[in-house]
Amino acid sequence: MRIQISVAAMLLSLSAVSQAAMFEPVPEPTIAPQDQAKVELGKMLWFDPRLSKSGFISCNSCHNLSTGGVDNLKTSVGHGWQQGPINSPTVLNAEKQIAQFWDGRAANLEEQAGGPIANPKEMASTHELAVQVIDSIPGYKPYFKKAFGTDKVTIKEITDALAAFEKTLTTPNSPFDRYLKGDKAALTPQQIKGFELFKTSGCTICHNGPLLGGSSYQKLGVVKPYQTTNTAQGRIEITKKDQDRMTFKVPQLRNIELTYPYFHDGEAKTLEDAVRIMGEVQLGKTYTPEQLADIVAWMKSLTGDQPKIVLPILPPNGKNTPQFDPWKKD
Amino acid sequence: MRIQISVAAMLLSLSAVSQAAMFEPVPEPTIAPQDQAKVELGKMLWFDPRLSKSGFISCNSCHNLSTGGVDNLKTSVGHGWQQGPINSPTVLNAEKQIAQFWDGRAANLEEQAGGPIANPKEMASTHELAVQVIDSIPGYKPYFKKAFGTDKVTIKEITDALAAFEKTLTTPNSPFDRYLKGDKAALTPQQIKGFELFKTSGCTICHNGPLLGGSSYQKLGVVKPYQTTNTAQGRIEITKKDQDRMTFKVPQLRNIELTYPYFHDGEAKTLEDAVRIMGEVQLGKTYTPEQLADIVAWMKSLTGDQPKIVLPILPPNGKNTPQFDPWKKD
Repeated sequence: MRIQISVAAMLLSLSAVSQAAMFEPVPEPTIAPQDQAKVELGKMLWFDPRLSKSGFISCNSCHNLSTGGVDNLKTSVGHGWQQGPINSPTVLNAEKQIAQFWDGRAANLEEQAGGPIANPKEMASTHELAVQVIDSIPGYKPYFKKAFGTDKVTIKEITDALAAFEKTLTTPNSPFDRYLKGDKAALTPQQIKGFELFKTSGCTICHNGPLLGGSSYQKLGVVKPYQTTNTAQGRIEITKKDQDRMTFKVPQLRNIELTYPYFHDGEAKTLEDAVRIMGEVQLGKTYTPEQLADIVAWMKSLTGDQPKIVLPILPPNGKNTPQFDPWKKD
Repeated sequence: MRIQISVAAMLLSLSAVSQAAMFEPVPEPTIAPQDQAKVELGKMLWFDPRLSKSGFISCNSCHNLSTGGVDNLKTSVGHGWQQGPINSPTVLNAEKQIAQFWDGRAANLEEQAGGPIANPKEMASTHELAVQVIDSIPGYKPYFKKAFGTDKVTIKEITDALAAFEKTLTTPNSPFDRYLKGDKAALTPQQIKGFELFKTSGCTICHNGPLLGGSSYQKLGVVKPYQTTNTAQGRIEITKKDQDRMTFKVPQLRNIELTYPYFHDGEAKTLEDAVRIMGEVQLGKTYTPEQLADIVAWMKSLTGDQPKIVLPILPPNGKNTPQFDPWKKD
């Protein structure tokens, strides 16, 4: 009961915030012209499976830019076909978030990029091996030289270049963005109805700002406990504070139509499921089928223009490049 | 001894063939303008991991267009991280071959494309499931309609579209092509020396035509048995004739710098290894280190302009699309 009062109070305080501040068009990339060489190098590294121990998994394997920057799996396939621990969040528009990963353990994209490379359940390499591999490829040298002024490869340069590329992965010009900018015909009447319901329901407490999320950590299961078999405990793993148990970074809603399945455990298969469950466990609301359909219709207006990526051509191994063997035992 | 005489005789007969006929620039794609819609659809299917049982493996996983149309692994990673039986051949310029697969079991690209989808060690789906999945995705319908005049999905349409896309994957304008067309400065003096040695050694018996290979089946180990732990027996598996044991389609040499490791078993890690072993087991020749270096230098002139691929954006699942679970037990 106390919780519901608190939600009401927050709604009241939010009503003072103008719609313009609460909802903003998706931000433009923040790449300085002099960083264009980093972007180009980062794109190559993004698609390079040699950053993984197997030589088979690239960043794009789990954050597939053909499919909304995710793999559309409940949890990802890692080295040796291991089952990943958590749902892969989208890389699209990922920069402007409070932090990276579901539990916010990386402050920014640069810090995030080093994680999966060395995670034994993901790409299963090490920073040392990744640097050794990339450093051994002669064709990469001019790209590092152009991006960083030196062709000495370090993990910092690798992750900086990856982050520079990721920062370009924004999705402007969604129907919702056009609507926010004044084109009232950009949304259908049903989508406008869904949007109004989204706002008056309290969804905007967590899903606000340019990404409609990504700006705060919130407990999953505010009104009613969230049931899951997934063992992730959220932010407590970082802060070690008991109040952060089951507290996760609020996922962004941008391109949500493409980034199924939903939640940190990937248990919600459809947008209808996701909205229904969120209503129940976060807001204590049971939406009618019509209300669900309206909100979902609006959510589909959040799909922006996807990045136009020309597939990079990767330089071949050099004579000192370590051999890849996906089945090699340590 | 008899074999060496036979090689000499073949060389003699080949010397009558003009260089223009034996070596031709890489062929242009043979796509009719009215098939452009098939190409576009085929590109989407090429990158769509939903053709696999896991929803994780696409055609591009093993025939990666960032890395010469191969995965640069000895044998490929299949469903459940299975170790593939044979080295993944390149899709680049693959059309103009005598047949497809190392053992030629598919007559053309259309027939080939259906193989990996249903191979339990590769994508591990079935044609029925693949059709059901693609048919359930509303966003594919307009593409099928435009390509085939009907939006009824069949495996024939899927493989026809894949083949149409693959036919565009040619790599013109290599230094060797420019040399053949009259630009004598397109090759370095060392490359020209290597090319002359390649011709006079007898390599051209098998590696001739526009692809420098792909036009005949040949026994591996003509002069000396080829040692391998790989269990593939080659063309005998198709013809059931004992003389076809260890007979494989001669691989093309186009873009050979990018398509390591070499041979059907992927056991040759470098071009030097590959040329040295071929000399020994096929021609009974031991090249000097300098000769090896010359031939390898020439081979690097066979790398053409790689296809410029804009990554397709794939339509999301429909409400009837089966769920993907890479770890699901049957």
